[in-house]
Amino acid sequence: MTAAYQGEPGAYSEMACQKLFPESETLPCRTFRDVFESLKNDRAQFAVLPVENSLAGSVHENYDLILEYPEVHIIAETQVTVNHHLLAVDAATLETIKTVLSHPQALMQSAGFLDQYPHWVRQPFYDTAGSAAHVAQQSDPTLAAIASRGAAERYGLKILASAIESNHHNYTRFFALALKSRPAKEPFNKASIVFTLGQEIGSLAKVLTRIAEASFSLIKLESRPIHGRPWQYMFYADVMLGPDVERFFALYRQLPNYVGDLRLLGTYFSDLINYPG
Amino acid sequence: MTAAYQGEPGAYSEMACQKLFPESETLPCRTFRDVFESLKNDRAQFAVLPVENSLAGSVHENYDLILEYPEVHIIAETQVTVNHHLLAVDAATLETIKTVLSHPQALMQSAGFLDQYPHWVRQPFYDTAGSAAHVAQQSDPTLAAIASRGAAERYGLKILASAIESNHHNYTRFFALALKSRPAKEPFNKASIVFTLGQEIGSLAKVLTRIAEASFSLIKLESRPIHGRPWQYMFYADVMLGPDVERFFALYRQLPNYVGDLRLLGTYFSDLINYPG
Repeated sequence: MTAAYQGEPGAYSEMACQKLFPESETLPCRTFRDVFESLKNDRAQFAVLPVENSLAGSVHENYDLILEYPEVHIIAETQVTVNHHLLAVDAATLETIKTVLSHPQALMQSAGFLDQYPHWVRQPFYDTAGSAAHVAQQSDPTLAAIASRGAAERYGLKILASAIESNHHNYTRFFALALKSRPAKEPFNKASIVFTLGQEIGSLAKVLTRIAEASFSLIKLESRPIHGRPWQYMFYADVMLGPDVERFFALYRQLPNYVGDLRLLGTYFSDLINYPG
Repeated sequence: MTAAYQGEPGAYSEMACQKLFPESETLPCRTFRDVFESLKNDRAQFAVLPVENSLAGSVHENYDLILEYPEVHIIAETQVTVNHHLLAVDAATLETIKTVLSHPQALMQSAGFLDQYPHWVRQPFYDTAGSAAHVAQQSDPTLAAIASRGAAERYGLKILASAIESNHHNYTRFFALALKSRPAKEPFNKASIVFTLGQEIGSLAKVLTRIAEASFSLIKLESRPIHGRPWQYMFYADVMLGPDVERFFALYRQLPNYVGDLRLLGTYFSDLINYPG
């Protein structure tokens, strides 16, 4: 079995792959869309997708892609702790560095550290592990990358400074995806749905009240612009499931009375439920 | 009077500045935080901040900054149409281009066009106008930038291909900000609040029901992670105001019974209300 992820080997997404599918091979993909295509073409049987960072918020592109590929559903959820390190070749020291490469998000999350070196140029790069690969390849002691410890090991770089992120409560949430022909493993403790609303006042309040009346706890609600209909939104909702999953399906069958479009993105097991918050 | 914005001259934010404050000078700032600091230090009396793109969604960093600067409030709202063009120096043609620079968002929004030239390297850059400035400065016919018509004029570049964005319904929504000592101009037609919730089931439904019972229409609801409390959220809500603004303040005074923390970010005039949707 193979699990696809976006990024270079050593990416945080690869760590999530190994956590969710320890028995599977991993398949690096160039773009998030390629991850979905690899499922469709059966080059991978599982895929792992970052959907939210505890500081930066949702990865909207991926929520949009989940909608674009209705043959795919969510089969599990986990999180990975993000620790950023400053990586460079052996010959480098903090004094030789002139340019720091990384994903814009990692640069921003390490701003407090980087502000101590105002003469360093911050160069955005497509992903963290890719910036580490680039630094290793250039073998230039004026370059540093911000990436994970795994990326340091993978590309033979040393850690010039560790845990340089400003906020250490930095986690990324990942969905495991598969084609719907491959059912999710039970027990389910979470469900994700997406819906649009009618135009009347209070329509969102009515949906949420119906969910609350059925005693389901809303974990997250996220609005997303509908492309081509400026300032109209669809809503992604995550709901906590109890042991009686049939009760959720009974609620789900009533929801069309309260919403416009509606889709179930998956019922699955999340190891974040009972997260010590 | 001076209005601050983030980016280089020719940025979409500068266009929003000129639309909202046609009588004011414009002050380009390096970062969004610098925009807020310029208000605090009275280097600018107004500021303009992108808060949402109709395709990409909210600019979360800016919502977070609004919370960080409680001395600032929203005094107006407008939108700017985003049309991306491919810009290069006079000597360039579509055949000479090898590298295209722009903000990652603009590169993504122009992917359909760029896919016709698979040999072009897509190089992410901090902002669109900055990429145009860089191409002009390098005077290299293998480089192109994706930016606005305003940026082409500003930096003396020619338009190699126009309106290259894949989806032409591409708008960015901007807030005008000022210190609270400078009140917003009436008439108000919109209010923005931010709140957190209690832990009990249905607490969001209760807030929204209260707003709906008071006959206020919710325009947008957005959840944002609370930093340091992973997978807990605060909610930004935009509400449409009628002519009787006092009715809204009466509702606002009741809301503490339904929410945890609560803040009013502004009551203001938006030219997007009655937007032909």
